[in-house]
Amino acid sequence: MVDTMLRGYKDIARVGLVGGGVIGTGWAVRCLANGLDVSMTDPAPEAEARIRETIARTWPTMEQIGLAEGASVDRFSFHPTIEAAVDEADFVHENVPEREDVKTSVIAEISKHLSAEVIISSSSSGLLPTSIQSEALAPERVIIGHPFSPLYILPLVELVGGEQTSAEAIAKAAGYFTRIGMRPLHVRNEIEAYIGDRLQEALWHEALHLVNDGIATMQEIDAAITGGPGLRWAFMGIGMGWHVAAGEGGMRVNMQHFAPTLELPWTKLKAPPFTERLNDLVVEGCEAQQGDRHWLEMEQRRDQALIKIREVIQEYWYPEDQDGWPKVRELP
Amino acid sequence: MVDTMLRGYKDIARVGLVGGGVIGTGWAVRCLANGLDVSMTDPAPEAEARIRETIARTWPTMEQIGLAEGASVDRFSFHPTIEAAVDEADFVHENVPEREDVKTSVIAEISKHLSAEVIISSSSSGLLPTSIQSEALAPERVIIGHPFSPLYILPLVELVGGEQTSAEAIAKAAGYFTRIGMRPLHVRNEIEAYIGDRLQEALWHEALHLVNDGIATMQEIDAAITGGPGLRWAFMGIGMGWHVAAGEGGMRVNMQHFAPTLELPWTKLKAPPFTERLNDLVVEGCEAQQGDRHWLEMEQRRDQALIKIREVIQEYWYPEDQDGWPKVRELP
Repeated sequence: MVDTMLRGYKDIARVGLVGGGVIGTGWAVRCLANGLDVSMTDPAPEAEARIRETIARTWPTMEQIGLAEGASVDRFSFHPTIEAAVDEADFVHENVPEREDVKTSVIAEISKHLSAEVIISSSSSGLLPTSIQSEALAPERVIIGHPFSPLYILPLVELVGGEQTSAEAIAKAAGYFTRIGMRPLHVRNEIEAYIGDRLQEALWHEALHLVNDGIATMQEIDAAITGGPGLRWAFMGIGMGWHVAAGEGGMRVNMQHFAPTLELPWTKLKAPPFTERLNDLVVEGCEAQQGDRHWLEMEQRRDQALIKIREVIQEYWYPEDQDGWPKVRELP
Repeated sequence: MVDTMLRGYKDIARVGLVGGGVIGTGWAVRCLANGLDVSMTDPAPEAEARIRETIARTWPTMEQIGLAEGASVDRFSFHPTIEAAVDEADFVHENVPEREDVKTSVIAEISKHLSAEVIISSSSSGLLPTSIQSEALAPERVIIGHPFSPLYILPLVELVGGEQTSAEAIAKAAGYFTRIGMRPLHVRNEIEAYIGDRLQEALWHEALHLVNDGIATMQEIDAAITGGPGLRWAFMGIGMGWHVAAGEGGMRVNMQHFAPTLELPWTKLKAPPFTERLNDLVVEGCEAQQGDRHWLEMEQRRDQALIKIREVIQEYWYPEDQDGWPKVRELP
């Protein structure tokens, strides 16, 4: 398995990028910084200048993170057509607008110009790979590789295969993403919005309801995240955040504590029924992440991380917002 | 208004705590570190020993954050009854189990032993203040003061008044919370789960559905947060995270980009209708937070903060989880 993976990514020297918005340009920056050649296309008239400017602007950040040997902005080229951009590519990212018909036809077009073993990775945020691979030649090499902005810094990339995607394509793509410094998360079940955007969208829809119903402003919603749970989510997620918060007993205690409130109208999203099976899945998932670490050690590390993260935010984000919280604190 | 606030918190020297679980003990730690006297009660037989042990264990963390003048663990006392714990208190936190009947009767009991100007702040995560203040003497001084774990580090506290709560009680409580290093967010509309837990519960219910439907494990869900959006949420929230990610045009561009996907089944939580009014509320809320900062400056600061936060997590949380992500990355 590892051999397949290594064989896969070692072959990749040139990446083709189709579509140069925020996501496409992010791939260009990450790939260049990781020492790859990048060939790109985008139909907008001002695209090349804008993309080159963004790469140049972001390069000092990538130098700070650390460039791979041989990495250079000079290894970027811009091309007038999809054919020219993907011509010699060993891996292609599709980054066109989030419409199923558009992505499906662009992926079909890309596939015509590539030999069958070159992977086409769609940056879709939530469309089904089975749909968008349907018109491609050699559809078994079409996957979703869904990143998160700013993708040149954030490590997560979700890999999702469609009905026709081969296991080898997923393995090869995982090797490639690891090679460019990312953490591939294989979404084993094909589902719209995958895992990350399911969660983002749930949070977002609830926020939109709060705004729409006149309960809270966008500022108050952001403040309610950044002052509290968001700080834990950054490194613990929601499961481990509550697992460690509970102290002795962890999520096993917390789930019993939460069970009655699952029925309460605390969100517009109705919970699934609280069954023993669901309880066990959640508890065992948290305990597996804990491993043989003692909860007191996790508490201590959590607290240290939170103190330091707050110091970073104070230093690098807007200290005047952190100190007095003037834009959100409302005293009557 | 400021005068009322200052008059309020300057009077507070002793805090009474009723209920000594994770939240009650967290208040004890925060209040002691901020130089207050703390009188506490909890009916569990082992409670006093456990609480004292937790305070002692957490004290070095509070020393690291910085103790107020005169702060001492010796200013903690434990009492056998509610009456004794709140007897000389200038401010009382109620931290008993999350059941409306229990909280309502405990708050009624607390109120009998306090003069009418002493605020009773419930640590409820989502119950309506109008309900739990209903049997109290002088119900106008009953508020919700909802913290987030670990409450001795996280600054957010949501203040919610019920129908009978006075504006003065909210103002006085806001002054007190600021005095003990917190950021009071006044939830202007009484609603179950307030703002912070609406958002947490939406995320949580979506996560439970993913687990329940066999789509993802708890580990994969946490990984999908910590590798990507969670890192932004820590300091930008969801609105500003997307506002800055969009580059030029910010959320005004992103909302148009998101509009078609709001209709897609990307979460079990249906979005409100996408209206011009909702669009304006979201966009203007983000632009107000931006103020006259240029998006290029915000992008630069965001990237610096993200790089440093990732370094903190690498150093203080579990580096072996960050490096290889062995527990969540699944290659087929």
